[in-house]
Amino acid sequence: MEFTLAGRRCKPCEGGVPALTEAQARELLPQLDAHWKLAPDGKSIQAQFNFRNYWQTTAFVNAVAWIAHQEDHHPDITFGYKTCTITYNTHAIGGLSDNDFICAAKVDALLRRPE
Amino acid sequence: MEFTLAGRRCKPCEGGVPALTEAQARELLPQLDAHWKLAPDGKSIQAQFNFRNYWQTTAFVNAVAWIAHQEDHHPDITFGYKTCTITYNTHAIGGLSDNDFICAAKVDALLRRPE
Amino acid sequence: MEFTLAGRRCKPCEGGVPALTEAQARELLPQLDAHWKLAPDGKSIQAQFNFRNYWQTTAFVNAVAWIAHQEDHHPDITFGYKTCTITYNTHAIGGLSDNDFICAAKVDALLRRPE
Amino acid sequence: MEFTLAGRRCKPCEGGVPALTEAQARELLPQLDAHWKLAPDGKSIQAQFNFRNYWQTTAFVNAVAWIAHQEDHHPDITFGYKTCTITYNTHAIGGLSDNDFICAAKVDALLRRPE
Repeated sequence: MEFTLAGRRCKPCEGGVPALTEAQARELLPQLDAHWKLAPDGKSIQAQFNFRNYWQTTAFVNAVAWIAHQEDHHPDITFGYKTCTITYNTHAIGGLSDNDFICAAKVDALLRRPE
Repeated sequence: MEFTLAGRRCKPCEGGVPALTEAQARELLPQLDAHWKLAPDGKSIQAQFNFRNYWQTTAFVNAVAWIAHQEDHHPDITFGYKTCTITYNTHAIGGLSDNDFICAAKVDALLRRPE
Repeated sequence: MEFTLAGRRCKPCEGGVPALTEAQARELLPQLDAHWKLAPDGKSIQAQFNFRNYWQTTAFVNAVAWIAHQEDHHPDITFGYKTCTITYNTHAIGGLSDNDFICAAKVDALLRRPE
Repeated sequence: MEFTLAGRRCKPCEGGVPALTEAQARELLPQLDAHWKLAPDGKSIQAQFNFRNYWQTTAFVNAVAWIAHQEDHHPDITFGYKTCTITYNTHAIGGLSDNDFICAAKVDALLRRPE
């Protein structure tokens, strides 16, 4: 499991490292579920999740907040009655880092259906 | 307390009633805390709240979600590490209703400081 | 509203003040909703709340947590699928203080039905 | 991962199957983190988790609630300022089932430290 994105942990990122290039980001993207999109400027990834009702939505928001706490990496979260949009980028470097993809993969794992 | 916005309850709104005019909305706005702004098109109200950390922010988000549940009126909520933006409007009528102001006043009450 | 329990704020309690006597606690109890009971030893108050499902229950738990945060006074909360039990006492004085009744009244306000 | 407890999904349990024997439960227990204990009567498992503050505690509670939702299997959760106790058993069969161990393993995964 250590080799999958979801099995890795975020590394502290205080800046000083280069952001992922758009090519690097496009290479990582297929490791995430298909709802994740790269922003046109290549500086963030975003996914929209749909739910049946407000309870599912808020429970999911809290589960994503737990990941943010564990990884010390905090997305922008927007939600309404049945929908939640999550955006990851790494402020300190003004673009995407591995951390963004690691957290996105952990969000995907929250929703993984049984095998 | 029944005469304050925060003391009222949302009425079910299935549409069919007219939205508040911009003048009506501007008249209600002073009953809310000063961080609430009317959107330029007069169709929604929005406020940004700042917190010390992620815990405060997510606890606040959950408290607002409780109001949404109690009133059956659900805002758009966007939050990151230390900030949360709340937008109320009434989808069914394509603009603002009393319900938006009632819920905004209840959000204000969450943050009321001791007398 | 300043004269009701729910309209007051908790005072910091570091101990050094006497706990409420059982007689004092019994006098405050009628200001709370009827589900609050005094423990047989007079040192805590407890109420059980029933909900329709897990979402209602967890949303309520989060709303109570917000009160705990705002008042810096933290109850014991036990919950399962459709039920939540809340117990207030003041550890620092080994018994009940006004703070416990203030917070319990605020919990009641969360569930207040429309007038 | 499919062969670990945390990688499995709960099966619907409406009763009609026998509960795990205490011997079976004792055999599964080492697959969980060491804080999980079998109740003296062999009918439930329980663990206590300690945190630094209320925020960590409530964030954890919400993360456990998400697992409960995903697996449709709901523990008893008790929490205060810095501590949270979780108890799993399967009401429908009056004792323990595989589902209890699967969910407990998923709770452990929430707290897994980086490799």
